[in-house]
Amino acid sequence: MSWTLTAADLPDLARGATLLGTGGGGDPYIGQMLVTQVLGDRSITVLDPDEIADDLFVIPTAQMGAPTVMIEKIPAGTEPLAALRTLEAHLGRTAEATMPIECGGINSMIPLIVAAESGLPVIDADGMGRAFPELSMETFAVYGVNGSPLALAGERGEHVIIDTGADNRQMESFARAITIRLGGVAHIAEYAMTGADVRRTAVPRTLSMARNIGGAIREAREQHRSPFAAIAETLAKTLYSEVRELHLGKVIDVERRTTQGFARGRALIESLDGAGPPLEIAFQNENLTACRGNELLAIVPDLICVVDHETAEPITTEGLRYGQRVRVLGISTPELMRSPGALETFGPSAFGLDRAFVPVEHLGGIVISRA
Amino acid sequence: MSWTLTAADLPDLARGATLLGTGGGGDPYIGQMLVTQVLGDRSITVLDPDEIADDLFVIPTAQMGAPTVMIEKIPAGTEPLAALRTLEAHLGRTAEATMPIECGGINSMIPLIVAAESGLPVIDADGMGRAFPELSMETFAVYGVNGSPLALAGERGEHVIIDTGADNRQMESFARAITIRLGGVAHIAEYAMTGADVRRTAVPRTLSMARNIGGAIREAREQHRSPFAAIAETLAKTLYSEVRELHLGKVIDVERRTTQGFARGRALIESLDGAGPPLEIAFQNENLTACRGNELLAIVPDLICVVDHETAEPITTEGLRYGQRVRVLGISTPELMRSPGALETFGPSAFGLDRAFVPVEHLGGIVISRA
Repeated sequence: MSWTLTAADLPDLARGATLLGTGGGGDPYIGQMLVTQVLGDRSITVLDPDEIADDLFVIPTAQMGAPTVMIEKIPAGTEPLAALRTLEAHLGRTAEATMPIECGGINSMIPLIVAAESGLPVIDADGMGRAFPELSMETFAVYGVNGSPLALAGERGEHVIIDTGADNRQMESFARAITIRLGGVAHIAEYAMTGADVRRTAVPRTLSMARNIGGAIREAREQHRSPFAAIAETLAKTLYSEVRELHLGKVIDVERRTTQGFARGRALIESLDGAGPPLEIAFQNENLTACRGNELLAIVPDLICVVDHETAEPITTEGLRYGQRVRVLGISTPELMRSPGALETFGPSAFGLDRAFVPVEHLGGIVISRA
Repeated sequence: MSWTLTAADLPDLARGATLLGTGGGGDPYIGQMLVTQVLGDRSITVLDPDEIADDLFVIPTAQMGAPTVMIEKIPAGTEPLAALRTLEAHLGRTAEATMPIECGGINSMIPLIVAAESGLPVIDADGMGRAFPELSMETFAVYGVNGSPLALAGERGEHVIIDTGADNRQMESFARAITIRLGGVAHIAEYAMTGADVRRTAVPRTLSMARNIGGAIREAREQHRSPFAAIAETLAKTLYSEVRELHLGKVIDVERRTTQGFARGRALIESLDGAGPPLEIAFQNENLTACRGNELLAIVPDLICVVDHETAEPITTEGLRYGQRVRVLGISTPELMRSPGALETFGPSAFGLDRAFVPVEHLGGIVISRA
């Protein structure tokens, strides 16, 4: 169902999008501030993918870069729309809607900035169903939409158009190279497609899902109920229906470096009772694996989310600190993100991991009971 | 005067362009082979800049990358024209001529490949008056033509358009980043301009000068005359009228590394009689300074050319080897390459050198007498 988004929805959306960021995706708080500023008391139309015309022309918009840089290098706010306009001019066609390429982290907010500035509607769907570190890691790409041509806008009016045909990895490589030269953050428009393409290739209703998760956590806190049960209950009605608690513990070590345009590293989380080996989370912008000793508990593309042990506030990779008490959640991804083509594009091997994908619901996490 | 170029001109042009490459610019031999192959027994019209219409629309074409890579990664030959066509499509305007951005090294040949493939004429002029390592180091830029928009073509059909407005250094930075991702070599079209712009901003008649130098060296060898006197005599009639012998000696050390898309390093050349300190040449793709002990003998943008001590065959940076007997020549550049704006763009400070520019004719090189 299509719906209307106002500034009042943004805190819930930001909280949910941070959870779906699985440690990465950039802190949506900055994006939320930008949307709030541009939107004022107006509203944005969020279109349900089942309700759009087959020939609706959609240009998704996003920010790219290392989350560690994104929180220090604040955009002016005009770059995402500049990227969209650059792609429109190149294609000789005007966008009728924008859309997230990624529903986790700041990229849940960037299309809203574009929508608030341009009056365009936003499609309630995205191409990652979470956050991923690379532009080629899109369900759009898995199911046959090319990322090229991509338009990139810099903060000083720079414009770049990249066309690598069907080679989305080369597109990612070129755009990453430019982003590094821009200091680590750029804004892009890519994966231009029709309404029919959206229905065929996108993960549906992920913006509303993010808002609903964020709202469920808030309401549970207000009503002194378990926010973890609220998350499980909310997701039970979605394509992300399996929720597991993988670990409860204290962060005892974080190793993090920003290299080649990514934030890479690992975190160690000791059990609160000190029993058993610590949980180790490896990340490239986003969390990739959660292992306790030799036991795999969750692996990409399933979601591995670190949250505060009591409030369920999601904690991003760059927010991880020694001593934090956290719970680690594992959440199942929709079937269209677990197909052989999807796993080739953003499964373990796409990150250089030599482990096979195993659904989180078949591993050793504890089922979180619904409220 | 406009003239007609055939395959028979290419060996002379390549030799002269290698000299003007001042150690860099890429080995024109590979370019010569490509032109020969495409051209066959046809010819190319080379237009004198004084004879073109004010509104002639010119798109220069070039290769960019580290010369050390260029000699190992041979282009298919279709990339330079693909870059030109990409820029035409972006600008919505068809080129009426192409032109070198650089007369030294392989970039003397790239526009000839485009001309042979497309039938376009080539302007007898360029924007460096020699070779320089960066796309921003152009007399075009010094006198007010922007490099942007730049079109870049890769060997697998990739197309990129870069528009950084008046910021030619940012354009260079973006294009270099993409070139590195392409493995070290890319082909570009940039500095689109009118015939009037060419007359105002280009170094005139440098293609014919390269051909004439190459021809003079060849003829002197055939006639058992001094090729050095022949070079001096040929250049006396041009804007490059001062020729000096800076050193005669043996290469005793070469330090060279390919880093950040450039070939950087230094060469040491001992005197043949062993007297005095060796000559040290520092380079970034091209030779930047020639010093003997504390004595500066020539400095960028003047030309520092290492040639065989007997045949005057020019030796590029990547061709330098221990034991070679060489002469080092210093050649003055035209006044439009020594203006304050020019020195800011491609003088010593543009390469991070903390020495002031001193014209080679005011330094300690020995005047080479004309034949």
